[in-house]
Amino acid sequence: MVVPEHTLRFFTESVFLAIGCNTADAAQAADVLIQSDLRGIDSHGVARLSGYIRLWEKQRINGNPDIRIVHETSSTATVDGDCGLGLIVAPFAMGSAIEKAEKCGSGWVAVRNSNHFGISSYHASLAVQKDMIGIAMTNASPLVAPTFANERLLGTNPMCYAFPAGEYPPVVVDMATSAAANGKLEIAQRTGKQVPEGWLQDQQGNITTDPFALKTGGSLLPLGSDREHGSHKGFGLGAAVDILSGILSGANYGPWVPPFVSFLDPLPDAPGKGIGHFVGAMRIDGFRPADEFKADMDKWISRFKSAATIDPNQKVIIPGEPELEAEADRMQNGIPLVDSVVNDLNKLAVKFGLQPL
Amino acid sequence: MVVPEHTLRFFTESVFLAIGCNTADAAQAADVLIQSDLRGIDSHGVARLSGYIRLWEKQRINGNPDIRIVHETSSTATVDGDCGLGLIVAPFAMGSAIEKAEKCGSGWVAVRNSNHFGISSYHASLAVQKDMIGIAMTNASPLVAPTFANERLLGTNPMCYAFPAGEYPPVVVDMATSAAANGKLEIAQRTGKQVPEGWLQDQQGNITTDPFALKTGGSLLPLGSDREHGSHKGFGLGAAVDILSGILSGANYGPWVPPFVSFLDPLPDAPGKGIGHFVGAMRIDGFRPADEFKADMDKWISRFKSAATIDPNQKVIIPGEPELEAEADRMQNGIPLVDSVVNDLNKLAVKFGLQPL
Repeated sequence: MVVPEHTLRFFTESVFLAIGCNTADAAQAADVLIQSDLRGIDSHGVARLSGYIRLWEKQRINGNPDIRIVHETSSTATVDGDCGLGLIVAPFAMGSAIEKAEKCGSGWVAVRNSNHFGISSYHASLAVQKDMIGIAMTNASPLVAPTFANERLLGTNPMCYAFPAGEYPPVVVDMATSAAANGKLEIAQRTGKQVPEGWLQDQQGNITTDPFALKTGGSLLPLGSDREHGSHKGFGLGAAVDILSGILSGANYGPWVPPFVSFLDPLPDAPGKGIGHFVGAMRIDGFRPADEFKADMDKWISRFKSAATIDPNQKVIIPGEPELEAEADRMQNGIPLVDSVVNDLNKLAVKFGLQPL
Repeated sequence: MVVPEHTLRFFTESVFLAIGCNTADAAQAADVLIQSDLRGIDSHGVARLSGYIRLWEKQRINGNPDIRIVHETSSTATVDGDCGLGLIVAPFAMGSAIEKAEKCGSGWVAVRNSNHFGISSYHASLAVQKDMIGIAMTNASPLVAPTFANERLLGTNPMCYAFPAGEYPPVVVDMATSAAANGKLEIAQRTGKQVPEGWLQDQQGNITTDPFALKTGGSLLPLGSDREHGSHKGFGLGAAVDILSGILSGANYGPWVPPFVSFLDPLPDAPGKGIGHFVGAMRIDGFRPADEFKADMDKWISRFKSAATIDPNQKVIIPGEPELEAEADRMQNGIPLVDSVVNDLNKLAVKFGLQPL
């Protein structure tokens, strides 16, 4: 089924209104999910809507949170999300980072007591619109085993850097710190295909190509896949995201990060509150005139786009480019949804008395 | 040959004095190299001393630079290194970042017109001593091909995050954004061994295990090694380091970063000045009380150290741990140097009329 952007947006807003969000929050939360679907990141868009609702039903998400700054300096702050949707809490935090950057060059906000915040690039890109560099990261349900470990101790812990350019669109580096995202395993599960070696290990810690191994006690592997190819670097990056998001804010970290799936309860003896994020904004003109920076960004992009390639039909992809192409296409032609997602959404329609898709 | 730390330090300081550094700068530059050797990162210690001297002889390094802040806000600055040693310029920039963090919570400094700055962890760790989180990164000589490319357009562009802990030593994530560092190829070249697939490609862009392929027109590969295993993520990280270090500061970037080896001239039409770095410091208590943060860091470290492992004899390695163990050993037992490095250093002794090792 292909659904026009505005139809899917209205539907998603209605669901968030139904769980007690005010109008502005419902629009904000829906915008994060719809932007994700528009940009072709289907795993993080409306496909997750029923997951958020199940967490709300378990009272692990607060539909009407009192999000507030609990500690701050002129360039730093800690935000308590009051157990709200990360889709709302993270833009609040980013707004605060941008405000601080306007006043003193940069702003950095650690967030605790939040939930899954959708795609990192949404939040980081809020800064780009203001001629700032945006940074956003989050910890997440433990699925990744550190190098040598046979335990899931880290999430796929994504980090995003977003940079404004001039003539070209922004450069947006948005990446999980694991070798592969869970969404890629799900695609292989649906199509009955094996996955490459280096994506995951089974319950005994053996290399496997079975996409179901994660569901049977296995673990995802850090970016780099194995020690020889630098998995300690992927582990280190995931650790840095965990510390900045979880420890600096007073959220949970490591194996204590509350799972996204509602059928798993958080571990007892949680050391912190909820999930953690870390966001930042830096004014370009805190370093050099923005027009000079943008001219050099254009030169950088142009040089990399025109690089000699191994296969002349396959050009170098500038980070963020495929998502923009998807957005242009889907704004015009609508957002394709697989049947299982449509069914999921229509069950929500029944639950909340909404018009089905 | 095994050389006591103080002997090697005195020797290195004397060489920097001989190229016109003042006493403080010579001590600073030597400290970065000696710390690298102490921590077991042999590729970035005195093994590089003759390389710095050759750049000085080509007038690409200024022994007595006027390092200064050229632009600033309360939490950001741009430093011009006046073509000085990165070993001196980067600690200056980090000092400025720390000073800004003391006043307003965080400080971020982009650096242009600098040179190779040694190990990132040296600079990031300067913040840790002040109960701050330290961040340091740099761009570098182009050796890495972006995903799909058959051109060297990025350096191994390392990034470092350093976090203070309580009872445990700091967590220090210091990593090249390539699958393997050049130093590892050099070891394979010396010992006549093949390297794993996924480290580099040859001049035609084919996968190769020949460690000499980089010297015959090949390229290093980004962390992730190939598209299927996430090399676009390693490319994205390397790109982010390049933009923050090179473009934000007004330094060179991409293929225009001046090569470390003196026999290669920088490309004509350089868009910026010298090599670029980016450093930052954030006060822990800009977010939450430092003692609470450190208690959680200890809990994090303890949990990861005691993780179940695949091989019970191989524990999870906390980032920064091996370097600290090496430091304790080498402070006591001296720094081992391979013959080629001793010969290199003794040639410098002859050149500058110093006592040989």
